Amino acid sequence: MRNIRLTIAYDGTDYVGWQVQPNGPSVQTTVESAIAKLTGETTRLQAAGRTDSGVHALGQVANFSSRCAIPCANIRAGLQTFLPDDIVVRDVEDVSSDFHATYSATKKRYRYVIFNSGVPDPFVRRYAWRVPADLDSEAMHDAAQHLVGTHDFRCFESHFPNRATSVRTVSEAVVGRHAGWPVWNQPDSLNEKPCAEGQFIWFEIVADGFLYNMVRAIMGTLIKVGRNVWQPEAVHDIIQGGDRAAAGETAPACGLYLVDVSYENGGLLSSNLEESLSPDPDCRT
Amino acid sequence: MRNIRLTIAYDGTDYVGWQVQPNGPSVQTTVESAIAKLTGETTRLQAAGRTDSGVHALGQVANFSSRCAIPCANIRAGLQTFLPDDIVVRDVEDVSSDFHATYSATKKRYRYVIFNSGVPDPFVRRYAWRVPADLDSEAMHDAAQHLVGTHDFRCFESHFPNRATSVRTVSEAVVGRHAGWPVWNQPDSLNEKPCAEGQFIWFEIVADGFLYNMVRAIMGTLIKVGRNVWQPEAVHDIIQGGDRAAAGETAPACGLYLVDVSYENGGLLSSNLEESLSPDPDCRT
Repeated sequence: MRNIRLTIAYDGTDYVGWQVQPNGPSVQTTVESAIAKLTGETTRLQAAGRTDSGVHALGQVANFSSRCAIPCANIRAGLQTFLPDDIVVRDVEDVSSDFHATYSATKKRYRYVIFNSGVPDPFVRRYAWRVPADLDSEAMHDAAQHLVGTHDFRCFESHFPNRATSVRTVSEAVVGRHAGWPVWNQPDSLNEKPCAEGQFIWFEIVADGFLYNMVRAIMGTLIKVGRNVWQPEAVHDIIQGGDRAAAGETAPACGLYLVDVSYENGGLLSSNLEESLSPDPDCRT
Repeated sequence: MRNIRLTIAYDGTDYVGWQVQPNGPSVQTTVESAIAKLTGETTRLQAAGRTDSGVHALGQVANFSSRCAIPCANIRAGLQTFLPDDIVVRDVEDVSSDFHATYSATKKRYRYVIFNSGVPDPFVRRYAWRVPADLDSEAMHDAAQHLVGTHDFRCFESHFPNRATSVRTVSEAVVGRHAGWPVWNQPDSLNEKPCAEGQFIWFEIVADGFLYNMVRAIMGTLIKVGRNVWQPEAVHDIIQGGDRAAAGETAPACGLYLVDVSYENGGLLSSNLEESLSPDPDCRT
C-alpha cells in the first residue's frame, strides 16, 4: 500500500472550505473525486490544515493511501485533468506509511493579505481584504511581536473551549508592506521584498498549530493597532486576559492563505518522530 | 439634461461581455440597472469598446443622459452600492452634450497578458492566458512593430467582411516581460517596468479603432513568433495577404484588458471635433 502526499494550491473563493460541508463543494471532496476518477479507488484525504470557507492555499499538504501503480509525475498530470482550474496539484510524492499530513506537521505558515486602498479593485477582491483606512504597518509589526513565543491563545479562538489545549508556539510573526500579492508561482523577489509604499500589507505567521479562526482574529486585532485605536502593547494584554471579546473582530476569509507546512525529516517520518504530534489536529483556521 | 461619463473597471470573467446578450449577464445591463436604482431613470449606456465575453477592463468609458441632480462624487459612491464587486466605477464626470463614448474616442489601448509558465496557478487563471512553451518575447516585440502604421487589418478580423472599412492606424505596439499582472490600482512602477525574467508577457497596443477579435488574433499570431514557428517578418506578410486563415488562432479572452480610451479635448467635445469619429464603432474587440 502506497502513502501518497499531495501539495495543493487553491483559490478557496468558491469552496465551503477544505472539509466536507452540506452547503456546497469542498476542496477535499473535489480532490477525492479526482483521485477516484484517476485510480478507481475511493480514498479519504488527510490534510495539514482544514482551511475555512473562502480561505486559500498556496501549499496545503494532504495524503492518502493507494494501491495504484501510477508514477508520481503521472498522478500529478492525471489529477489535474480531473480538477477544476481553481485547484492545482503542485507536487506528488511517495512518503513512508507513518506519514500523516495532519499529525506529522511540525509547523504551518499562514499569510494574511490586506489591500490598503480607498478604491476597490475588481481584480483583487477575491484575494485580499480591502481596508480603506490609513494603516500604520510598523505599529502592526510591533504589535505582532507580542505573539511570538508559547502562549495560551484562547483570546483568538472562535469556539473556546475546545476539546484540547489552546496553548501554541508562534515562532515568527511579521507585518510588512508589499507591492504585489502572493502568487506562489511568481519570482521570489516580488513576493519577498517589502516596500514602503506598497498598497498590500502582508501578515506572516508561523506556529506549531493554529486554533479555529486564530489568524483572522489576530488580523482583526492588528488592524485596530494599525488604525491607532490600540497601542501595540494591547496585544500583550489581550493574550494575558484570555478573553475573545477583548480582541479584534474576525477578519474576512478572502485575505487568508495557508502558505506551507513543515515536516520533520522532509515528511519521510520514522515512527520515533510521533512525539511531534500537533496538539489539536481538529482545529480549523 | 446632463451627459455623464463613467470610467469603469471590471473583471469580465463572469459576464457575457459588455453588450446585452441572451445567454447571461452583461456588464452594460448590470451598470444600467445600478443607474436605474440610483436615479430612478431608465438609461442606455454608450461604451467606448464593446468588450467580448470574458474580456476585462481597467478603464472602459461609457456615457448616459440623466436629469438627476446628484453630484458626480455621490453618483460614484451610490452606483458602487448597487454594483457587484467585480465592477468598479472609477470616475464620474459631467461632459458636454455632444460627447459620445463610442464616436468621440480617438484612441484605445488594449493589453494582452500571457502567463508564461509550465505550472498552472489558481490565482492567475482568470486574468491571463497561460502558455507553457518557452516564448521569445523579443522576437514577439520585433514582430509587433510590423503592426505600427495605417494598414488594412482584415487578416486579424473574425467576421470579415464587416460593414465598413478594416483599415486602422496602430500608433504603438510593445511586447515585454513583467513580474506582475495589470492591477490598475497598483503603483505605476510595478505596471510599467519590464524585467527580463518576468513570467508575465504583456502585449500593449494603441490604435484609433479595433476590429472584432483583432487583438486576440494578433496575439495568437505573435505566439507563433514567440515559439519560433514563424519569423517576425511573417506579420508583415500576413497583413499584406489579408487572409484571416494565414494568421494565428484567436487567443482566449481571459488575457485581454481594455486599458484606457483617449478623447480630444479631454472628452469635453465641441461639435467641430466630430470629424474624429471612429471608423467603425460597431466592432467588438
